Amino acid sequence: MPAQDPATQRGGRTLDPWYDNYARRTSGLTVSEVRALFAVASRPEVVSLAGGSPFVSALPEELVRGAFDRMMREHGADALQYGGGQGIPQLRERILELMALAGISGASADDVVTTTGSQHAIDLVTKLFINPGDVILLETPSYVGALGTFKSYEADVRHVDMDEEGLNLEALEEAIRRARAEGKAVKFLYTIPNYNNPTGVTMSAARRREVLDLCIREGVLIVEDDPYGLLYFDEPSPKAIRSLDEEHVLYLGSFSKILSPGVRVGFVLAPHGIREKLILAVESSILSPSTLNQWLVTEYLEGSDWQAQIDTFRHTYRERRDAMMAALEEHLPQLSWTVPKGGFFTWVQLPETLDSKQMLPLATKELVAYTPGTGFYADGRGHDKIRLSFSLPAPERIRLGVRRLANVINDELEMIETFGGFQKPAEDDNRFASAPPDLV
Amino acid sequence: MPAQDPATQRGGRTLDPWYDNYARRTSGLTVSEVRALFAVASRPEVVSLAGGSPFVSALPEELVRGAFDRMMREHGADALQYGGGQGIPQLRERILELMALAGISGASADDVVTTTGSQHAIDLVTKLFINPGDVILLETPSYVGALGTFKSYEADVRHVDMDEEGLNLEALEEAIRRARAEGKAVKFLYTIPNYNNPTGVTMSAARRREVLDLCIREGVLIVEDDPYGLLYFDEPSPKAIRSLDEEHVLYLGSFSKILSPGVRVGFVLAPHGIREKLILAVESSILSPSTLNQWLVTEYLEGSDWQAQIDTFRHTYRERRDAMMAALEEHLPQLSWTVPKGGFFTWVQLPETLDSKQMLPLATKELVAYTPGTGFYADGRGHDKIRLSFSLPAPERIRLGVRRLANVINDELEMIETFGGFQKPAEDDNRFASAPPDLV
Repeated sequence: MPAQDPATQRGGRTLDPWYDNYARRTSGLTVSEVRALFAVASRPEVVSLAGGSPFVSALPEELVRGAFDRMMREHGADALQYGGGQGIPQLRERILELMALAGISGASADDVVTTTGSQHAIDLVTKLFINPGDVILLETPSYVGALGTFKSYEADVRHVDMDEEGLNLEALEEAIRRARAEGKAVKFLYTIPNYNNPTGVTMSAARRREVLDLCIREGVLIVEDDPYGLLYFDEPSPKAIRSLDEEHVLYLGSFSKILSPGVRVGFVLAPHGIREKLILAVESSILSPSTLNQWLVTEYLEGSDWQAQIDTFRHTYRERRDAMMAALEEHLPQLSWTVPKGGFFTWVQLPETLDSKQMLPLATKELVAYTPGTGFYADGRGHDKIRLSFSLPAPERIRLGVRRLANVINDELEMIETFGGFQKPAEDDNRFASAPPDLV
Repeated sequence: MPAQDPATQRGGRTLDPWYDNYARRTSGLTVSEVRALFAVASRPEVVSLAGGSPFVSALPEELVRGAFDRMMREHGADALQYGGGQGIPQLRERILELMALAGISGASADDVVTTTGSQHAIDLVTKLFINPGDVILLETPSYVGALGTFKSYEADVRHVDMDEEGLNLEALEEAIRRARAEGKAVKFLYTIPNYNNPTGVTMSAARRREVLDLCIREGVLIVEDDPYGLLYFDEPSPKAIRSLDEEHVLYLGSFSKILSPGVRVGFVLAPHGIREKLILAVESSILSPSTLNQWLVTEYLEGSDWQAQIDTFRHTYRERRDAMMAALEEHLPQLSWTVPKGGFFTWVQLPETLDSKQMLPLATKELVAYTPGTGFYADGRGHDKIRLSFSLPAPERIRLGVRRLANVINDELEMIETFGGFQKPAEDDNRFASAPPDLV
């Protein structure tokens, strides 16, 4: 830029001449330092246990082609045109069948709003409810993409401790009490009860009831995010919290993990008043979700045995979960990890002397990648945790990846024994504030 | 809901128990009173001159099918998977060719970000820049969907007067001066220089230069929204403002009007620093735009004579523009209106005694619909203006619609002569704060 430019002069502190013009909330959008590493990790020779991508190759291409053909034949002009902000009624009707599998019965398609993937729903709900400084409660740890969105609206994000049954009830009650004692508004509890991202932990049926009762008593809205619920390995997950109550729960679902993330179709089942606002928020953000993709999903649901396809996904992921568990037992028996009953992830506790983020360059050098734990905390914790994903690599690649990871960990421990341990960073730097899409 | 529910007790003023929990910005999301009327207007017997939908039937279905086939054959797994937040590189390369037609040369695909339609880009840019109370300048009148989004971030939206060459330069300078004298930050100028929605007016080449020079001098960012630019009727529109400067202009484009709005693919060409933030904002809002739709558009651009298809659209819309102009001449010679050189809309000045919103029920009763002018102003003006769209109905339907409209207007004038005129509402009620998607 020419030196005489006023924009440059005003924003002299940075290479970006518009630096001083951004909204306050924009400072919450930060670039992840590990992005460059993950770019390296996407090379084919690296076994990536880092991403949260589904194994879309398990979906027969002809099912997608068939859905497209039927769509063009029967709804071509509609599919190419603008649609309503709430989403097409035919898809919303079909979504009722999907939610019935999560135990949600008696819902009305009128109360469903379709979105550009679940992330869009998280974004819009946050936009609707959060003034800067308002409190959102969530699990410890929780989904990196939700954390980033919450921060982008300047929420005060507070983790609630978990036990093996999910959110700890006393901790939840105490968090609500403390926030209110500080004069803060507690706007909602964000929870992933099924096969939590990143821990893989499932909230028990009893705990769901207790959490709901507490939230009703305290007047706290529950945002129940359920992208993995239908991907159980042995027996179905407990019924959705939304199945127990209509008025205190926003239920978020998605086709990303049971069909394809490329279509970006998610949905919300919302109490009446919130649903009205959500439709306006969809329109304000994107006018309407893609009608083409909505029709494509509708025709897929109408013309395929989609439940059998979900079974195929379940069996694939169970086999991979088993491969990962066995490999961890074999190569890293000294560590502990969660045993997920569904979904994509296990959560590994490293020795406290290790720093999972500092170790990542060594790991990629050894041709294995994982996600450091720090991204899943809003408060700087997680240096000694990693998330491993088993959704995308084949079982033999999972075994290879865990073997490589064991070498990295053992080398690192040996090095620390020789030269001393890592220094915990003084402040929370939250490098995952924005999640790269292939990391979710 | 049971009466003992604390949520109900807290929010007793309304049927929505969560009423007191919404963020302050949510009050800016209001439902349009005329929605119900437009639902009526979508009946086939009504000639709708209200919507801004493109005539997608002019797009041969086999072009879409061919693009889908090639996509599935060559990029099936990629198209079904998550993608990057910036958008797929292959599409961003193709977008350079599209922008070259608007006079933008020498841009890099690195500086392009794809979005879920242009509306998404408007939303994200506003999120990045606007603190509550910050000033956005725009044309008088301007796009209803942008107004709604700006309000949803609590912007202070200020109209700048126009003349036949577009934004009036003195008015623009004065608006910047006044806002700054009030201690306000002027964050950007939002402009639709080509075939403005709703007026159809085009900013002259000379005026573009002057507006840009003023904005550079004053350090004001320009958001140039150009969905209609390639849809000229006789000669191409002046070169985009972005063609004159890289650092002070965000250029927004869309495939909605030259291919299909159903795919929801738009894009932004942004200065480097802003582009980085935009990618993070995309990820925070939706992770990534639909890879399937991005590949579909890419294959369409690679495998079709898409410029010939744009010519087809242009000729279709020119014929319809001519039909509307002729019908207005014939049936409403006493009124004045704009003669657009491209795009979808003309802007009609009614006699001052008429209220275009109050007249709408009568019009739909007479089986014609239009868009009242009030939706395109943030300040309550526009009661004596209407926007007529000629993009969707065939020429004979346009003629029929204008004849019906003339009857409604003449009946209304006669009635007012007999019984007295309408009362201008005392305050701005902004009923279009959220635009129904089929109205854009």
